[in-house]
Amino acid sequence: MAERITKQSEDFSRWYNDIVIQSELADYSPVRGCMVIRPNGFAIWEKIRDTLDRLIKESGHQNAYFPLFIPESFFKKEAEHVKGFSPECAVVTHGGGNKLEESLMVRPTSETIIYTMYSKWIKSYRDLPVLINQWANIVRWEMRTRLFLRTTEFLWQEGHTAHATYEEAEEECLKILNLYSDFAEKYMSIPVLKGQKSEKEKFAGALKTYSIEAMMQDKKALQCGTSHNLGQNFSKAFNVRFQTKNGNMQYVWQTSWGVSTRLVGALIMAHSDDQGLVLPPRLAPTQVIIIPIWGEKKDNSEIINIIDKIKNDIKKDVSVKADTSEQNSPGWKFNQYELLGVPLRIEIGPTDIKNREVVFVRRDNNKKEKVSWDKIKENVRFILEDIQKSILKKASEFRDSNTFYFDDYKKFKEIMERDGGFVMAHWCGEKSCEDKIQEETKAVICTIPFDSKEESGKCILCGDNSSKRILFARSY
Amino acid sequence: MAERITKQSEDFSRWYNDIVIQSELADYSPVRGCMVIRPNGFAIWEKIRDTLDRLIKESGHQNAYFPLFIPESFFKKEAEHVKGFSPECAVVTHGGGNKLEESLMVRPTSETIIYTMYSKWIKSYRDLPVLINQWANIVRWEMRTRLFLRTTEFLWQEGHTAHATYEEAEEECLKILNLYSDFAEKYMSIPVLKGQKSEKEKFAGALKTYSIEAMMQDKKALQCGTSHNLGQNFSKAFNVRFQTKNGNMQYVWQTSWGVSTRLVGALIMAHSDDQGLVLPPRLAPTQVIIIPIWGEKKDNSEIINIIDKIKNDIKKDVSVKADTSEQNSPGWKFNQYELLGVPLRIEIGPTDIKNREVVFVRRDNNKKEKVSWDKIKENVRFILEDIQKSILKKASEFRDSNTFYFDDYKKFKEIMERDGGFVMAHWCGEKSCEDKIQEETKAVICTIPFDSKEESGKCILCGDNSSKRILFARSY
Repeated sequence: MAERITKQSEDFSRWYNDIVIQSELADYSPVRGCMVIRPNGFAIWEKIRDTLDRLIKESGHQNAYFPLFIPESFFKKEAEHVKGFSPECAVVTHGGGNKLEESLMVRPTSETIIYTMYSKWIKSYRDLPVLINQWANIVRWEMRTRLFLRTTEFLWQEGHTAHATYEEAEEECLKILNLYSDFAEKYMSIPVLKGQKSEKEKFAGALKTYSIEAMMQDKKALQCGTSHNLGQNFSKAFNVRFQTKNGNMQYVWQTSWGVSTRLVGALIMAHSDDQGLVLPPRLAPTQVIIIPIWGEKKDNSEIINIIDKIKNDIKKDVSVKADTSEQNSPGWKFNQYELLGVPLRIEIGPTDIKNREVVFVRRDNNKKEKVSWDKIKENVRFILEDIQKSILKKASEFRDSNTFYFDDYKKFKEIMERDGGFVMAHWCGEKSCEDKIQEETKAVICTIPFDSKEESGKCILCGDNSSKRILFARSY
Repeated sequence: MAERITKQSEDFSRWYNDIVIQSELADYSPVRGCMVIRPNGFAIWEKIRDTLDRLIKESGHQNAYFPLFIPESFFKKEAEHVKGFSPECAVVTHGGGNKLEESLMVRPTSETIIYTMYSKWIKSYRDLPVLINQWANIVRWEMRTRLFLRTTEFLWQEGHTAHATYEEAEEECLKILNLYSDFAEKYMSIPVLKGQKSEKEKFAGALKTYSIEAMMQDKKALQCGTSHNLGQNFSKAFNVRFQTKNGNMQYVWQTSWGVSTRLVGALIMAHSDDQGLVLPPRLAPTQVIIIPIWGEKKDNSEIINIIDKIKNDIKKDVSVKADTSEQNSPGWKFNQYELLGVPLRIEIGPTDIKNREVVFVRRDNNKKEKVSWDKIKENVRFILEDIQKSILKKASEFRDSNTFYFDDYKKFKEIMERDGGFVMAHWCGEKSCEDKIQEETKAVICTIPFDSKEESGKCILCGDNSSKRILFARSY
């Protein structure tokens, strides 16, 4: 807490790192590219994970666990896949003191090992659909790393499903995309755009990749989750076949989808400020902090008793802590819990006791409000819900006011160089234009949004025909 | 379900494998020594993990996450530790397409990487105690593997704490041992012996290792959890020091402790029978299965409605499923859910409807009982609790009747060759006797039990003085 947080407006990237380090969410490890997720950060990840796990199970999926290691030969069975992931792999060449006959890749994603098992388990249409999810650690060798956003090892969930028809796989794929987008908006308070990736940006080995994309406070885009329709690419490579009702043998249709510890980074970059973390109440490990303002009296037992009563009264509804330590001043505590992003602070001092009230202070907008003792419980619940909605609204307004509908390439280039933002522009569909725009503006095609209306237009670069605007932005 | 389970009495080891494979708890993977934990098995692990996670948090610990990889040089800092674990390591030599300057070990346990971070984080007595736990995957190269019991990769939790004094570390160590033993008895229905390991059997780098030991149905011992007092061995190797209140610099005192997916194997080997799994209700993913016995009538809607009502009535208290599929016969379903170890089956047919009752069938002892509709809810709760206790009682009686207090080495050898069992015998404390006994009987010193009374005796091998009996058994 002693150190100053770099101002967001001064240097966004240092601001981000200062928050992560000073609020003790994570730390650099001595292992190249790997981070340590400290208890404060892991508690947020646990909230994300537990919520998503519930949603994934409620939608009919089961958890399982597959090996960390993938034999090199499996990896090579799907041509696009190996091309995309090989350069990022960590390779185990020795085990138990001996050189291995075949090297093992540490999983950069698990399609190849999981579908090897599916080819053993799936025999008949009666075995379908297979709806399995895995929570696991993943390794992708990264040259330029950033805490939570891009690290050599990260944690994620990866869903892997198999279906009898293309239509069912496509339906599953979109169902999960909607699950992710609901989660982002309702729990993370982050508005997202749903859409499809361009051919260039899709997952190595997929037929189509869908994603949700969010704007961070530096106006860059962050991909927050992906859902892939794999078609029959992997089932053909791994011979995952089933007997249909008619007795024919057919390859299954597959999907895979995932979100990762990157979402912790998204939470920070979407909502936090120069005082530290701002967390949506539904994902805040501690939702309410009670802090006493000691009076002149030496005996603090009265105030401590009242705090205990308040705590007991609300602890069934919300996650609440009190900091009654006498070592630190109230002011120090205010700063500390602001840094940690606790959504609501309750202060109570001698005058408040006389008036049978407390002071509520919101983390998101710093507003103070006196609340009488008998109204604490209902007000806590109401205010937390209001914070949840307010920060979503703020993030939505920020995104909307930084989203531009441009038909003029000069304006596009200017905004990217000056302020950044989301640019909705027409594109002809050619990779050459996509590449050139990226080269000149550093903006990529984040997504072809579902809610982009059909309208006739001209590619912002080459002028060829286009039927809808798509999202360009600089991206993490 | 089509295949027969080998009888336990015929071949214990094949019986075990048949259960794991046929109830789809796990499967062999094509990666040497690694298993796949299938949804049925993972659901049991989730129950174990979630319960333990709650108990660990309630006792003041926080979760965090540390890197999968450990640089070889860190590993070598504690001499005993590297000697113990090096031969079991998987080694990453290449990353991102290049040979690494320093090889990385895939963690076989995380003391070395975690304490490197502790040396950075711990500065003052105010930072102590540090009470951190991690849920992670672990790799130890195994030559002879066995599903859940011994696999190259497994899942576990590892607690790592740092304290200001030896006494506090010792207290923590025993607190966790008690937590593990309570968990084993109250949740897993497995009675365990708490005690200390011999010097030979202790953790590489520890001052002392405590463990809980259980008897399986083949009368072999299974170590179900360990808690290590690390003393200052690691803090000295990793320079984890703190400033005391007086301003002196001192090395911290440490503990580490863990349980793993091996506990799923323990559940199977302690309770299951020739029909399949027998699960303690508190860890059974499905506690109650309702199965309709269709009548002559073509219309099954009445019976289905009643089943729905029963389900809705009890689903707040217990995890309940109904199998109303018409594809399989009731007999097939009985076998299937017995195989899966669902503790309580509720059958309902046309006669039961007339009498406004159902039939309860317990998985543990196959006893049938008619229960009237208005008594279902209270009886379900009561019977599940009774099953939980009954299987603990059965396991305790089995263990006690196979525990022998021998002073005669010939008897010891005989019982080990014939039936196996726990032998409580005197031992002089010398490694030479420990080694010789192991060589001749294949029995090891599982633990020096806490509750072994002080009594003067003679080492069962050499005849030297001994002050208490200790536990010898063949062990997994």
